[in-house]
Amino acid sequence: MQTDRRSPDDVLTRLSESLPGRVDTAAEVLTAARTDRSGHRSGADPLAVVHAQSVEDVQAVCRIADETRTPLVVRAAGTGLAGGAVAGAGELVLDLTGMDRILEVSPADRLAVVEPGILNGDLNRALAEHGLWWAPDPASKDISTVGGNIAMNAGGLLCAKYGVTREAVLGLKVVLADGSLIEMGHRSVKGVTGYDLTALMIGSEGTLGVIVEATLALRPAVPGEVVTLGAFFPDVVAGAATAAAITTAGLVPAIMELADEATLAAIKDYAGPDGADLPEEGAFLLIQADGPGAAAEGTRMLELVVANGGTGRIAETPEEAERLVALRRSAFPALERLGTPLVEDVAVPRTKMVEMFAQIREIEARTGVRIPTAAHAGDGNLHPILVFGEADGVGGSGEIPQHVWDAAGEVFRAALDLGGTLTGEHGVGLLKRDFLAAELGEVQDELQRRIKAVFDPHGIMNPGKVFV
Amino acid sequence: MQTDRRSPDDVLTRLSESLPGRVDTAAEVLTAARTDRSGHRSGADPLAVVHAQSVEDVQAVCRIADETRTPLVVRAAGTGLAGGAVAGAGELVLDLTGMDRILEVSPADRLAVVEPGILNGDLNRALAEHGLWWAPDPASKDISTVGGNIAMNAGGLLCAKYGVTREAVLGLKVVLADGSLIEMGHRSVKGVTGYDLTALMIGSEGTLGVIVEATLALRPAVPGEVVTLGAFFPDVVAGAATAAAITTAGLVPAIMELADEATLAAIKDYAGPDGADLPEEGAFLLIQADGPGAAAEGTRMLELVVANGGTGRIAETPEEAERLVALRRSAFPALERLGTPLVEDVAVPRTKMVEMFAQIREIEARTGVRIPTAAHAGDGNLHPILVFGEADGVGGSGEIPQHVWDAAGEVFRAALDLGGTLTGEHGVGLLKRDFLAAELGEVQDELQRRIKAVFDPHGIMNPGKVFV
Repeated sequence: MQTDRRSPDDVLTRLSESLPGRVDTAAEVLTAARTDRSGHRSGADPLAVVHAQSVEDVQAVCRIADETRTPLVVRAAGTGLAGGAVAGAGELVLDLTGMDRILEVSPADRLAVVEPGILNGDLNRALAEHGLWWAPDPASKDISTVGGNIAMNAGGLLCAKYGVTREAVLGLKVVLADGSLIEMGHRSVKGVTGYDLTALMIGSEGTLGVIVEATLALRPAVPGEVVTLGAFFPDVVAGAATAAAITTAGLVPAIMELADEATLAAIKDYAGPDGADLPEEGAFLLIQADGPGAAAEGTRMLELVVANGGTGRIAETPEEAERLVALRRSAFPALERLGTPLVEDVAVPRTKMVEMFAQIREIEARTGVRIPTAAHAGDGNLHPILVFGEADGVGGSGEIPQHVWDAAGEVFRAALDLGGTLTGEHGVGLLKRDFLAAELGEVQDELQRRIKAVFDPHGIMNPGKVFV
Repeated sequence: MQTDRRSPDDVLTRLSESLPGRVDTAAEVLTAARTDRSGHRSGADPLAVVHAQSVEDVQAVCRIADETRTPLVVRAAGTGLAGGAVAGAGELVLDLTGMDRILEVSPADRLAVVEPGILNGDLNRALAEHGLWWAPDPASKDISTVGGNIAMNAGGLLCAKYGVTREAVLGLKVVLADGSLIEMGHRSVKGVTGYDLTALMIGSEGTLGVIVEATLALRPAVPGEVVTLGAFFPDVVAGAATAAAITTAGLVPAIMELADEATLAAIKDYAGPDGADLPEEGAFLLIQADGPGAAAEGTRMLELVVANGGTGRIAETPEEAERLVALRRSAFPALERLGTPLVEDVAVPRTKMVEMFAQIREIEARTGVRIPTAAHAGDGNLHPILVFGEADGVGGSGEIPQHVWDAAGEVFRAALDLGGTLTGEHGVGLLKRDFLAAELGEVQDELQRRIKAVFDPHGIMNPGKVFV
């Protein structure tokens, strides 16, 4: 194989010749590509940002990057929480925000074909006109792209009932590192020809190839009214036990969100006078049931809340329901006021949630780092939020102190010890790569690296992410 | 890398020493391993069948096979329909039927941990006691194993509503060709650490490694009564159009099975006097709705049947419902009486089903091969059944005449031209490997082969299957 290493200037010259008008080296654009919503910031500006408008643009960029051995970071909205799209010195950024078209919506085939740069929220607003929706529902949906959701295998609030992103993608068009374009998956519901590379791409965090088109499996709008239940408990253990009881009873809430004591306190404080009726202490569980059985399910869930020592109420008006949802939604901004947040993302088997909350309390006590925690309780996905620095510290330097990292490491280890995972939905990116092998084991870690090398023999696709 | 090619006798000696009492060379056992339910038969007996009882047994067999470069065919119930578990000259068979334990059922985590050799039906009977079920529902469920279902990414009747096998597996323990044991996936609902090797293994047809344990995602039993609707149409086009109208209307039947004119005629003939009330000609659509909205859905579905020129009726008693289901279930035995069946398995986008039925009619006319067809109409998966030889020809030589293969090839090409796939749920195995590259394209075909080589560098795992 002929190599063709060139100086950064040569790379920029080739890019500008091949992609006139697409290559951006404006200082603010380069600087913006150094960070994402994790708060992590790379040490230096990348070489350039290329604003792709077409599959051909992507192919041209990949070919040049591959031939010149230039690291390539694929990026769109930059809403990642693990540093997966952070670009640094000597790296090229491929920006897909310009590829944001909906190419097809087929109610009869119950699918949509889209470009990667479309925002999840924009897509779902367009689908709603057809009585359809795309189920992946990350909290970032109004600002994150479908391509990013796929690259990360995004989760969200609805996963226990409606699945993660992997279950909502039928096929992908992918540009490989060498610029070749392949089609994976199917337009049909079923299909088992060869290995499931579509599933392999989902969650691969930009390390295997560039997703340039996606065929998405849609769902019909869920009929009937949504039933919203807000419940308060003396402590998070009682709340987690209630969530477990609901699952064990065979009920399947659409949403089941648990906020621990510190999170509820922050929510109450953030709400000001509007939160006067919230309890002074305790935990908060928000549940929504949907579909034709929602009313009956809501009633049974409320019985389980009470049986587990909580007080709860089913919202009687849309306004009351919206207020309960808004309380949960305010958790993150409320916690941001306490200091700089490092948002973690462990997941454990549902039965281990109570124990995981207890472990987080112990880690807090041992390390002195505050770790308020909210959880997608229906699927055992906890977001321990390690808060450091000054109150209202958002927009700080992006540097995470070592003692906070150490506490995060203890959280990871506790999750793994409970049979869980480092990351339920945010990905490994830069921030969790040191722990990858601890979860996968050495043999699988090596196997995964060799799979990457099959797709990307020169290691140009998002190097340093996921794998150290 | 040190190679260690040995004669077949040496291989058997090593196996017998390492696995006393597990190595079987009885003639009838070897001969049975030459075929599966596809009817395909290999040219010669394999070397031996090793009856594994434990993970350690599997590891020992893999190590010996890998070191001696002996092809290894993993097998259990032998119910495959594509020749994926067919073993021939010089090959070793690893039989997993002895590894059939349920290791854990956790209603609270809504999961089960099982060995691969357990029958799907046996597992589901055990789960029913906990109010749970495992959704994969191939027609073979009473005779096929969970491990086989996973190795094939089995589908079945319920997929449009409840997903395929890939959506029902959380994690796997896998023995690689070199004997190493790795754990993929999670016990948690979510988890995005590294590449999704669990999904890659599902449907890999024994070519990547040996599944020795599976952690299965379960569902709570669906509440309420199942509504069963039987409908008859003047022709299969009207039936397929009705199925499409039901999907387009946003309804989600649990089951929607379509039998074409030739299939319905065979069913009526097979039923004898019991089928006197069935129409002389036309097509049959069987629909089941379940869950809390089933009654309302059934009514709307019946309206769509009538609007599309059909006559239908919602079963009023369990006996009436069972009779309708039994009619559909009798399709395969009914068709077997016409001759030797070659069961194909194409899938197309739902909107292309009408066109696919028309293409099959054209291929029948052009080739003279009869191709009665039944379809999982909810997901566009058609089973064209190419009938050849004498009536009541079951148990024939297993040799498929060239003109029947040619007709099957035309069916495959028609499905691909309609944006579909070679195989919706049966797998590629031996029987469809010649068409793999036509579906995947050359670049992806090569990529998949290189992925196989990562898992299995010496090419011992089910060689000749999936890939030519």
